[in-house]
Amino acid sequence: MGKGLFITFEGIDGSGKTTQLNKVKTFLETKGYNVITTREPGAMELGKKIREILLHYEGEVSDKSEMFLFLADRAQHVEKLIKPAIEEGKIVLCDRHTDSTIAYQGYGRGQDINILKDLNRIAVNGIIPDLTLLFDVSLETSQNRVGDEKDRMESSGIEFLKKVRNGYLELLKEHPRRIKIINANNNIETVFEETKTVIEKTLQEKLGV
Amino acid sequence: MGKGLFITFEGIDGSGKTTQLNKVKTFLETKGYNVITTREPGAMELGKKIREILLHYEGEVSDKSEMFLFLADRAQHVEKLIKPAIEEGKIVLCDRHTDSTIAYQGYGRGQDINILKDLNRIAVNGIIPDLTLLFDVSLETSQNRVGDEKDRMESSGIEFLKKVRNGYLELLKEHPRRIKIINANNNIETVFEETKTVIEKTLQEKLGV
Repeated sequence: MGKGLFITFEGIDGSGKTTQLNKVKTFLETKGYNVITTREPGAMELGKKIREILLHYEGEVSDKSEMFLFLADRAQHVEKLIKPAIEEGKIVLCDRHTDSTIAYQGYGRGQDINILKDLNRIAVNGIIPDLTLLFDVSLETSQNRVGDEKDRMESSGIEFLKKVRNGYLELLKEHPRRIKIINANNNIETVFEETKTVIEKTLQEKLGV
Repeated sequence: MGKGLFITFEGIDGSGKTTQLNKVKTFLETKGYNVITTREPGAMELGKKIREILLHYEGEVSDKSEMFLFLADRAQHVEKLIKPAIEEGKIVLCDRHTDSTIAYQGYGRGQDINILKDLNRIAVNGIIPDLTLLFDVSLETSQNRVGDEKDRMESSGIEFLKKVRNGYLELLKEHPRRIKIINANNNIETVFEETKTVIEKTLQEKLGV
């Protein structure tokens, strides 16, 4: 089997990352790779139970407590799903992971970024993505694409999205080797060409193919 | 009202800490203080829901994930119960808190102590006990006192308890100003006299009475 690979897909809503993730899956399977796709939060049964608690809890769950609950889901996801898959030689494509926490809860909601980084580090237990694709779009493109879901968009607010996008760009500066930016303002096929180029480079570097 | 006080009660099973906690409550109330007693885990509704998840979860919850779930309960407990009570000028007596995590999960079960300390620090958000009473008993005393509950004792094992007790003694060395050791091998009234002396000294130092 050989060594697996862990690739995360990040970006603001409307960046098209989920569409690209599915295209990457097909592309890699055609090349003969064993691929699994997953996402955060909510891939694990534990995450669903935690979500139930948060939805039906009487009274307010503190920010910090909520943070720990989400990280419990991440720890479970990494330990029970992502890590074993990589060890079995699979390519794991994950829709949102640690960088989403920093970008959304940290830069977006203003929670302490150093604490979030500490918690992420503890939760993932050494399992770091081989590659993170950051699908970067302008706020206009994001808003146009989200379209029908505009309620969610407006409730979050354009200022919030701007902070999240800037957060991702800060992370890109901090981790230039792991995170690669993709111009996601273009049409699906053009974005996919750029994505494929980055993925093929990573396959070459990490798997020597 | 003035400033409240946060006192934690620690020790291995059979140390008599819960009995002493109740006696301290009555003692302080007689002196006119507004006292609340609480415990970890399980004081909060959130903790009960988390416990339900852990009990009824199909498949295995990873150690790390479980750690995060317990810390979510602690964060909620501190933020929603302990901190407000202290701010209202109450004296909070808490049966087990952060030191139990280090002694039991860390020294006892061998989980990474530095990680547990980091998580504790994040969960309590600056709310540190003004005083921690460590009720120290020999393993023999502990075993004799637990008596009826001997099943639990034996399943944990004497070696485990020894590690936990040593863990507490390490914590005592690390935090000599916060943690005060009480010889809990004596009878209830003798232990209570020693406990009262320590509490009165703390009231003097912290509240100036």
